[in-house]
Order: sequence, then C-alpha cells, then structure tokens
Amino acid sequence: MYFPQFIPYSFIEKEASHVEGFSPELALVTIGGGKELEEKLVVRPTSETIVNHMFTKWIQSYRDLPLMINQWANVTRWEMRTKPFIRTLEFLWQEGHTAHATLEEAEKEAMQMIDVYTKFAFEHAAIPVIPGRKSRVETFAGANRTYTIEAMMGDKKALQAGTSHNLGQNFSRAFGTQFMDENGQIEHVWQTSWAISTRFVGGIIMTHGDDAGLMLPPRIAPIQVIIVPIWKKGDEKAVVVEAVDSVQKILKEAGIRVKVDDSELRTPGWKFNHYEMKGVPVRIEIGPRDVTNKSVVVSRRDVPGKQGKEFGVSMEPSILVNHIKGRLDDIQASLLQKAITFRDSNIVDVSSYGELKEAISEGKWARGPWSASDADELKVKEETSATIRCYPFEQPEGTKKCFMTGNPAEEVAIFAKSY
Amino acid sequence: MYFPQFIPYSFIEKEASHVEGFSPELALVTIGGGKELEEKLVVRPTSETIVNHMFTKWIQSYRDLPLMINQWANVTRWEMRTKPFIRTLEFLWQEGHTAHATLEEAEKEAMQMIDVYTKFAFEHAAIPVIPGRKSRVETFAGANRTYTIEAMMGDKKALQAGTSHNLGQNFSRAFGTQFMDENGQIEHVWQTSWAISTRFVGGIIMTHGDDAGLMLPPRIAPIQVIIVPIWKKGDEKAVVVEAVDSVQKILKEAGIRVKVDDSELRTPGWKFNHYEMKGVPVRIEIGPRDVTNKSVVVSRRDVPGKQGKEFGVSMEPSILVNHIKGRLDDIQASLLQKAITFRDSNIVDVSSYGELKEAISEGKWARGPWSASDADELKVKEETSATIRCYPFEQPEGTKKCFMTGNPAEEVAIFAKSY
Repeated sequence: MYFPQFIPYSFIEKEASHVEGFSPELALVTIGGGKELEEKLVVRPTSETIVNHMFTKWIQSYRDLPLMINQWANVTRWEMRTKPFIRTLEFLWQEGHTAHATLEEAEKEAMQMIDVYTKFAFEHAAIPVIPGRKSRVETFAGANRTYTIEAMMGDKKALQAGTSHNLGQNFSRAFGTQFMDENGQIEHVWQTSWAISTRFVGGIIMTHGDDAGLMLPPRIAPIQVIIVPIWKKGDEKAVVVEAVDSVQKILKEAGIRVKVDDSELRTPGWKFNHYEMKGVPVRIEIGPRDVTNKSVVVSRRDVPGKQGKEFGVSMEPSILVNHIKGRLDDIQASLLQKAITFRDSNIVDVSSYGELKEAISEGKWARGPWSASDADELKVKEETSATIRCYPFEQPEGTKKCFMTGNPAEEVAIFAKSY
Repeated sequence: MYFPQFIPYSFIEKEASHVEGFSPELALVTIGGGKELEEKLVVRPTSETIVNHMFTKWIQSYRDLPLMINQWANVTRWEMRTKPFIRTLEFLWQEGHTAHATLEEAEKEAMQMIDVYTKFAFEHAAIPVIPGRKSRVETFAGANRTYTIEAMMGDKKALQAGTSHNLGQNFSRAFGTQFMDENGQIEHVWQTSWAISTRFVGGIIMTHGDDAGLMLPPRIAPIQVIIVPIWKKGDEKAVVVEAVDSVQKILKEAGIRVKVDDSELRTPGWKFNHYEMKGVPVRIEIGPRDVTNKSVVVSRRDVPGKQGKEFGVSMEPSILVNHIKGRLDDIQASLLQKAITFRDSNIVDVSSYGELKEAISEGKWARGPWSASDADELKVKEETSATIRCYPFEQPEGTKKCFMTGNPAEEVAIFAKSY
C-alpha cells in the first residue's frame, strides 16, 4: 500500500502519547500552492494515524480481519545532530500495520515480526542482534509493548535495528476503528506496527567495516565477486579478456552476482582498493600467466594480505564454482562468528550499580537483574548515558536480585550507550 | 540512488525557467523540530536541482562521465483539483538523471528513454501511446526539448504518460557542473532527465477498464488467474479442494501468477464480481462435476458473458497450461488491438482551424500540419481547451501547409483535450 505522506495535524493529536512523543521531531508544511494552509500538514514521521483513519473506513466486520498492510516509504523526523544512515532527518523504511480481532492475535503478530527481523539480521546481514522487549520508558509513543533487535556496533555502541509494536487498542480507540464480531458485538480492533529502516544499512557498515571500507556479507552484497583483468602488453589483452568473459559466464550461470571491471582508465591497483572499499567479498584476478595455467587468483575481503589470497585456483567450471561458493559461505559464516565473539566479549554481567558504571565507562554493555523504577532507569541514563536497550527474550534461569534495589527481579536487562 | 526530498528554496531559484514553472505548485516546509526555519524547504516536485548540486561535487573529469542515476521516490506538486492517479498532490515515480560529455550523447539518451517507455506501454500495458516531441509551450521547465508518450483514455482525453527531457546545459550552467575533457578543457556537462509515474496506473485503468471494474493486461496483472472452487454439500469439499490444489500447482510451476480464493465467508458469485472488479484476466471455476469430468471452466475478463466462457477444458497438465497461456496471450493482444482501433477511429486529420474545432468539440483528437506561433497555440487552447500533445515522431511524407496560417509546415501536430 501507499499512504499520503502529508498528515493533517489534527490526526497526530488524536492519540495523546503519540503526539507527545513525536511533536518535537515534526517537519510541518504550512504553505502549499503559494497559500498559507488552514491546517498545518505533518510530513509523516510514521503512519499509524493516517493508516487508522483509513482502517476505520475499511473495517466493518470480523470478515475484514486480520487486515495487514505494508508500505515502503520515506519518513521524516527532525534531528538536531545527524549521522549518516543512523540518524538522518529523512530515512527510508518499510512499515507494517495490522488490525486483529483479538489481543492474542496482535501479540502473536508483533512477536512474529521481531522474529522475522532477527532471522534476517543473523542469516543475511550476519549481525548477531539481541532480540527483546523495550522498557516502559523506551516503548514507542502509542504502543503497549515494543519489541526490538539491538546490535553492537564496532565502537560498541548499541543500535536499535528494528522494532515491532503491540499497539493494543490505543489507536483504534482514538480513531474509532471498530468491527462487528461473530456474535454481533461491536469491538475495537487490536493492532500492531513494525518497521526496519535504512538505519540497518548503517548497522551493516558499522558491524563489519574496517579502515579499508565496507565489508559486505555475501548474501546481501550486490556484487559478490569482482573480476579484475590484468594485462601489460597489447597482445596480452585478447587472451585475458577471453578468459575473463568465460569465468564471468561460468559464475553468472551458477547464480553468483559477478561483475567485471575492464575499464582501461584505471589501474588494477586502483580497482583493488576501490572494490575493497565497496566491500565486495571476493576478488578474482586474471592475468596472462593465469590464463596459461588455466587458473585464477582469488582474494577474500575479510582476510587481509597474503593470508586471504589463493593462487592457482582452477578455471575448470565445476571446480571454480564450488570453490567460489565455498568461499562465499566461509565469509558469511566467518563475519557472523567474528561479530558474535566481539559482542559476547563486550557484554559484562553485573550485580551492582557500581559494576554497571564500570562496564559502561569501559564502553561495554552491562547485563543484570532489574526491577527498579522508571525514575531509577532515568537516573542511570543521566549518570552514565546508558539506557535499557532491552529485556532480552533469552533469560537466565533462577531467582534474581535487582542490582539497583536488591528487590527480587524477574528479568535481566541490557544497558548500553546508543546512537 | 536516493536524494533528500527537502530541497533548499535557493536551489530551486537557480535555474530561471525551472523556478518559474514550478513555484505555483510547491509545498513548503517552514517549521522543523518546533522552530521556524531560516530557509524554507521545498518538498521535491522533481529533483534536477538537488541532483545537480551533488553532480557538481561528483564530476571532475571526462572519466566520471556518463554519470547516470535513477531513483524511485515520491514527489509533491500542489493541485487545486485532484483526480485519483492522474492528478494527485503527491505521487510516486522513477526519475532518471544523466550527465554526458556531449550534446549528441545526451540527445541519444533522451531518445532512448522515450523509446523504452513506448515499448513498455505497448508490450506490457497494452497502451498504444503516440511518442513525439512537445511544443515549446509544453516543454518541461528547464529543458531544451521534451519527448512524451501520449495515450488516449476511454473518454478520449489525452494522458501524458511519460516524458524524457534533453536539458542541454541549463542546469549545469546554473549549478556549475563542469568536467575536464580529454584535452584538458573545462566544459559544462550535457544532461537529461526522464520519468514515469503512478499516473501510468491511471492510464491502465482508463484505457482498459469498463463498468465492471479494472481490466488488467496479463503481462502486468499481479494475479493472472483466479481459481474459484465451488461446492454445495460437505462431502463435495474434499474432492474439489484436492483438484483446485493440483490445478494451482500445475499453473504455478508453469510460471503463471495464480491465486485460489477458497474463503468460505464469501459466495462464488461474490468472488466472480470481486475478481472482475480487480481486473484478473482469467477465472477458473472448479466444481464437483468438473472434477468428475477431469476438466475446468475458463472465463475471460475481456469477453463478457457466455461468449467468454469455455466449458470442459482438460485438467491434463500440458493441455491446461497451453490453454491458459494461449488465453493470456490472446487477451494481451486483444486489449492492445482494441485500444489501437479505438485510438485510430478517434483521431481526425484536419486541414483548417474549423475542422480542428469540430473534431475537438466531438471529443476527438485533431492531427494537422502546424507551424504557427506560440501565441496561436495558446489561442487554440483558450478557444477549444485543446493543447498540442506532441509532434509525433511518425510523420506523413510530402509538403504540408499549416492549417492555421497557410504557411509551409514541416510537421503535423496532435491537438487534444487532456487531464
């Protein structure tokens, strides 16, 4: 679906906590077609309000439920200090919005979507996010519950990389979104919303990148293999180009995303650096000697220098395809493993506020039992800049004691500095 | 690529005819993050200015050319009277922007893109557009030349369905977008831009639709075949469902986009109407008797009533797949042919202004030799509401006499009322 991005200001005002949360971040259109507008238009920061305006018209009966829509769109949230991909005044995302007949169904949907995001992060982006529930303080403006995936970046800051909200009946009550159930009763619908944005691109860059540039997990790399032909004398060119074409064709037919850079305006050395910076996982070099030997040179982006370089890899189609596919799998697995190791070695289990302060001051994440108040949570933020990133779904067994108050705690929470 | 949608007002002002053309249609953000902005921000009506702002930074040398980018985005143009899909305050489009070293290369690119749009219209949307060049009066604000594809809707109004512009050096001079050529000379780049929008969706609806709803050409139909199972008694269900599953699988494996509607909340009759309204090209019904006969009932969306209905089409996989593929091809060809016949029977060749007035008053398009002034063109608009849609690329041979002035005319132009 696609909804208008200009939302009448009066829509935003209907859900009390929603307008409270978003009003400092709004961009407002006040002039249109040369005239001052009677009602200001909000450039959408998120679409719950305008979606509910339409859901109210579309939903009459339980037969219309569940109603589940998704849109890919730009959204605007005014930022004082921007940071490429991570905090931008405008960003791109997908936002899903659903309406259900029961709370249970809405809760199931919200959980399912955070699972989808978690799987995507692990299996495709090789980012070992920690899924969990947000604290009340950090819950989305207008939601009853917010689920999140939290990722540790290379500088150890936490990135909220995707969220899924159980909105309860907050928006359906504000907008009168009702349905007649199977027994003829009029009820308000139960809703969810969930989103993942271009911020995730920043997450990929900052999880895997190094000083040479990007390092893209093979499964999401637009180019998986870059082929750089090398020749010096004019008569070498024809034979190298022929071999390059053949290797490209072999890999393409095997479903590998491959590109040849045969530009004569740039040197091979320039190209090596360029595609390293672009994060291409595998580089193949082919020179006249390689053609003679019916082999190629294969380099891994994630293993620097000679260690990542293999000479004499056969050009024989089935051997080459198996070799390259194997390397791409190796790189995918290795990037994830490296990120898991990095993450786990930078999370500290704490049992006192002092230990939390120490962990945070070292730039690490702190994990510990927590059942203290919202006020205590804000105090931690004020004194350490760390916030509760989530109550992770994966919880240690046994009884726990809140590290702040000493009271019993049902869950551990993860604290960290974030973007 | 993706460029920001908020463009500083000062950018828009840099190209004189651009700001003149677009300023009446702008939406302006004047408040951000709760504060009055120092410089108003334009919500992009098109992106030439912000693209050139970046091209100026990115382009240094002939090695950087051609630079060709595309973005899929929303754009905003203030409209007093909106019309779904055709004139909307916000719409979605792709916009391409290119920079070249020579005028010839830019002209070739602009022509290539209008050809791409023409092919898409004919081959996929079954819309027999007329490609041509816009008159000076109708040329894009900031372009030297605008190419267009013009489509005749069901009410015989003309729809400008896609455009491609040769921008010359207008924006590169305004923004100082320069490059060093192979001889070390500094030159301004030559540019093009081209776009097709969600307006095209309106074109599809209004070319093929009828009183029962949409009629989608099979090549672009999201659902090409809808299967409606029919059973009355409980014991019929299992056998019908089994046959439906098997037919769905057969068609899916053959690459046909097929959907089954087995909801028990709606009757078959409701479903028939629903998927006709949605424009699904082919409907398959399967009831208990069909299962016994190992056959299905096939209906065409574009042929109403019994004439479009075939009974006893065999369920045998290869026969069924061939039959359905054949029907989809028939429908695609038939929709295009019907639209061509409609178009051609509603274009009148005129040799005087009186004949033009008569044709236009009958709601038809008028085609005739034209070499009169911009003022004459505006007079025609004022007196008949018709504008020059294009000088079609396909021109009659021989000498011609302008139907307005009697002077020699090199080309015929097409006049019509438009949206």
